[in-house]
Amino acid sequence: MSISKPALERLIRLSRLLGQLDAPETPEAVLSSAQMSRMTGWSGDTIRRDISLLKDNGATAAGYNIRLLRMAIRRELGIGDEIRKCCIVGLGRLGSALLGYEGFRGTVFEMAAGFDSNVNRTEILNAPFPLYPTAHMETVISREKIEYAVLAVPLQAALYTAQRLAGCGIRGIVNFTPRVLPLFEHTEVENVSTVEALYSLAARVSRIT
Amino acid sequence: MSISKPALERLIRLSRLLGQLDAPETPEAVLSSAQMSRMTGWSGDTIRRDISLLKDNGATAAGYNIRLLRMAIRRELGIGDEIRKCCIVGLGRLGSALLGYEGFRGTVFEMAAGFDSNVNRTEILNAPFPLYPTAHMETVISREKIEYAVLAVPLQAALYTAQRLAGCGIRGIVNFTPRVLPLFEHTEVENVSTVEALYSLAARVSRIT
Repeated sequence: MSISKPALERLIRLSRLLGQLDAPETPEAVLSSAQMSRMTGWSGDTIRRDISLLKDNGATAAGYNIRLLRMAIRRELGIGDEIRKCCIVGLGRLGSALLGYEGFRGTVFEMAAGFDSNVNRTEILNAPFPLYPTAHMETVISREKIEYAVLAVPLQAALYTAQRLAGCGIRGIVNFTPRVLPLFEHTEVENVSTVEALYSLAARVSRIT
Repeated sequence: MSISKPALERLIRLSRLLGQLDAPETPEAVLSSAQMSRMTGWSGDTIRRDISLLKDNGATAAGYNIRLLRMAIRRELGIGDEIRKCCIVGLGRLGSALLGYEGFRGTVFEMAAGFDSNVNRTEILNAPFPLYPTAHMETVISREKIEYAVLAVPLQAALYTAQRLAGCGIRGIVNFTPRVLPLFEHTEVENVSTVEALYSLAARVSRIT
């Protein structure tokens, strides 16, 4: 099965959207592609095509069964119910802001540790999970079976820190630094950048006008 | 001209990468697609195909002229040298972390204002630009000719605030909230989400193993 990255991103977002519906989710609740279109802004065609890539997608004459559709998306993503442990590396302004991030609630991801090279920060900051000096990173990641890392260190430390994370078995890095990371053999990277998002917006706006 | 979103995102990242090179950029400096491949992890074919979509892309027998390639990417993005003013809406943990964000340096984007419905925050927080109560948002955006907004309000306020931003002429919103925003007629939305980045990573990891 090979779903394109944009389609996969739409399905991930659709799944989160279905989890945000105001109406209580009954086992029979359905939603039509037209309704999803109004909520997402994507065309009905796009939505139907994306969903058609999924097996057992809950399609009925009245629309898609929400519960079955959400299950189908999770199955397609290869994500079961087991918890995936994550850590934050770099507890400056951005990293420490993520310590209280509520978006993990209701997901399979669980923050299990934070790291910073500045011991003052790891001692002073409050977090619902333990914080450690970066020197202990490899030990803690291995001991706690942490699989994912959110990288929020300063630009100058980004490459070296990412290489250490890749070297100790981290499966995926969410890269909040502006540094472009190289390809690692066993570690996937997903970039999150305010500036790149702004450039992307500006490019789309300039095409319209 | 129609370049796919993934190709556009790669070109944006490539442009930032070219700006991060350690070597000083001389007018004649070139870089081969093989070198770019090592730095980005994308295949040489992908890089050459993306660049071939650009006019006057600086291609030479020895590689691509870095200066010309960067200019070609900016031209393709439709981004000149004029400054684009941005604002941050919502100054909680994440929004206030962005107040000191250094990634805007060297870009055409300039933070011009911050907004929060909590007047204590706008009075206490330090920022290199003015902070205002959200009640003044429309007035300030119009007066300062602000074109882009970074949305970092709580989930419950996300939709209403985005609608207000779209209603007062904002051209693009970087959406940091987990709320899926509807399609606006004259306002583009780009989503930035740690959780969706993690799901995207997990999906890729599950395909590999």
